[in-house]
Amino acid sequence: MQRYFVSEENLLSDKIVIKGEDVHHIVKVMRMNEGDKIICNVLDGRAAVCQIQSVSDASVVTTVLTWETNYTQLPINVTIAQGLPKGDKLELVLQKGTELGAHEFLPFQAQRSIVKWDSKKMKKKMERYRKIVKEASEQSHRNNVPSILSVASFTELLTYSSKFNHKIVAFEEEARSPHYRKLSEAINQMKPNESILACVGPEGGFSDEEIQSLKKHGFHTVRLGPRILRTETAPLYLLACISYHFEELR
Amino acid sequence: MQRYFVSEENLLSDKIVIKGEDVHHIVKVMRMNEGDKIICNVLDGRAAVCQIQSVSDASVVTTVLTWETNYTQLPINVTIAQGLPKGDKLELVLQKGTELGAHEFLPFQAQRSIVKWDSKKMKKKMERYRKIVKEASEQSHRNNVPSILSVASFTELLTYSSKFNHKIVAFEEEARSPHYRKLSEAINQMKPNESILACVGPEGGFSDEEIQSLKKHGFHTVRLGPRILRTETAPLYLLACISYHFEELR
Repeated sequence: MQRYFVSEENLLSDKIVIKGEDVHHIVKVMRMNEGDKIICNVLDGRAAVCQIQSVSDASVVTTVLTWETNYTQLPINVTIAQGLPKGDKLELVLQKGTELGAHEFLPFQAQRSIVKWDSKKMKKKMERYRKIVKEASEQSHRNNVPSILSVASFTELLTYSSKFNHKIVAFEEEARSPHYRKLSEAINQMKPNESILACVGPEGGFSDEEIQSLKKHGFHTVRLGPRILRTETAPLYLLACISYHFEELR
Repeated sequence: MQRYFVSEENLLSDKIVIKGEDVHHIVKVMRMNEGDKIICNVLDGRAAVCQIQSVSDASVVTTVLTWETNYTQLPINVTIAQGLPKGDKLELVLQKGTELGAHEFLPFQAQRSIVKWDSKKMKKKMERYRKIVKEASEQSHRNNVPSILSVASFTELLTYSSKFNHKIVAFEEEARSPHYRKLSEAINQMKPNESILACVGPEGGFSDEEIQSLKKHGFHTVRLGPRILRTETAPLYLLACISYHFEELR
């Protein structure tokens, strides 16, 4: 069944009114009519099976039939801080990171990031990225849509990190050292509803100064298995392991 | 340090001779010379730090300095059977599946696969796919290169499955059923050095007949977390969880 995200103001007791782009999708793309059913996700996480009452160019009015009880949300809030990578790798992380349950994305300008973003470029990309994340949320049957923060400087990332319960950074050198910190040790300390900031470097990795700064700000270095992962694979490995721990092991 | 895969016939007691494409990479791309060090992976899994003795257009002769003792191989053999997906998704699975430790890839023609392959097309694609997997093995510091089998029919997949210790199929319906089989239950039964065949459907998923056939042939259906994953994300989630279980939890 098709799934749409609607903001709370469109929820009126037992009716949900859909406006904007999704109206076009429902009417012109899916060619739905009165009587057809869809799932509406209200942005605070609740979802309901709804039946279309009426359709116009501007809106689709639906009645709530039943509220869903499926819980598809990762029970811990993971923010992926991604050192800006090249090409369309960030889009891949946003799409698949959303499928895998990420709560929030924080792209940041790492020392070794090859791409540099100006604010004009950022605005256009952000629209595209929000669309990617919304579609991935719908397709993966999430109850909520992860947020994407504006590209931060490394200093802003460090400042932002102070509000998190847990902070980890994927550091490949950890994989080569015989006394590496196991990822499972880090994950075993996390509890449901806590917040995790997981930091991944760009293609060139982190500089020594960046690693020292992160450690000074309470980040724990972890390896992600014994193999070296690409910048865009690392967050997916991390999210999958956190999902496995919280959603498949318990 | 740059890593190259060489076949066993290039290993001569304490010398390793590199021929073919890698010579161009060493000499023209990396601009290496006598005295420079590289890592040579012999195809049976051993790797050595080597020093370049001499360089020519046709070969690079190196001396073995030390054999590596790092073990980067996933201690259980996972074959990813991927229902042929659209576009370049298979390439993504091959590349990242290799980083994540897969032993072997078996693309197969699923009932709902939109793409159909003829043998001429297959030959050209296979060359490209082998290159992708070799490069991903080098970049991720694997000691061996996963194999890619020719595209199989569904019947051939079922026949091939008889040689595996464990057979699982990612089935999203399992995610919606209240009595779902946990992935951890399946993984907990696996032991090091055993073989796993993990089957993933194409974009349209599996047909009911395919699921019935797979179950009849001893496949267990599993869900991969509570969210629905895309065809190309599913094998990555699976490999990450298996890696987490065998390489990070123990």
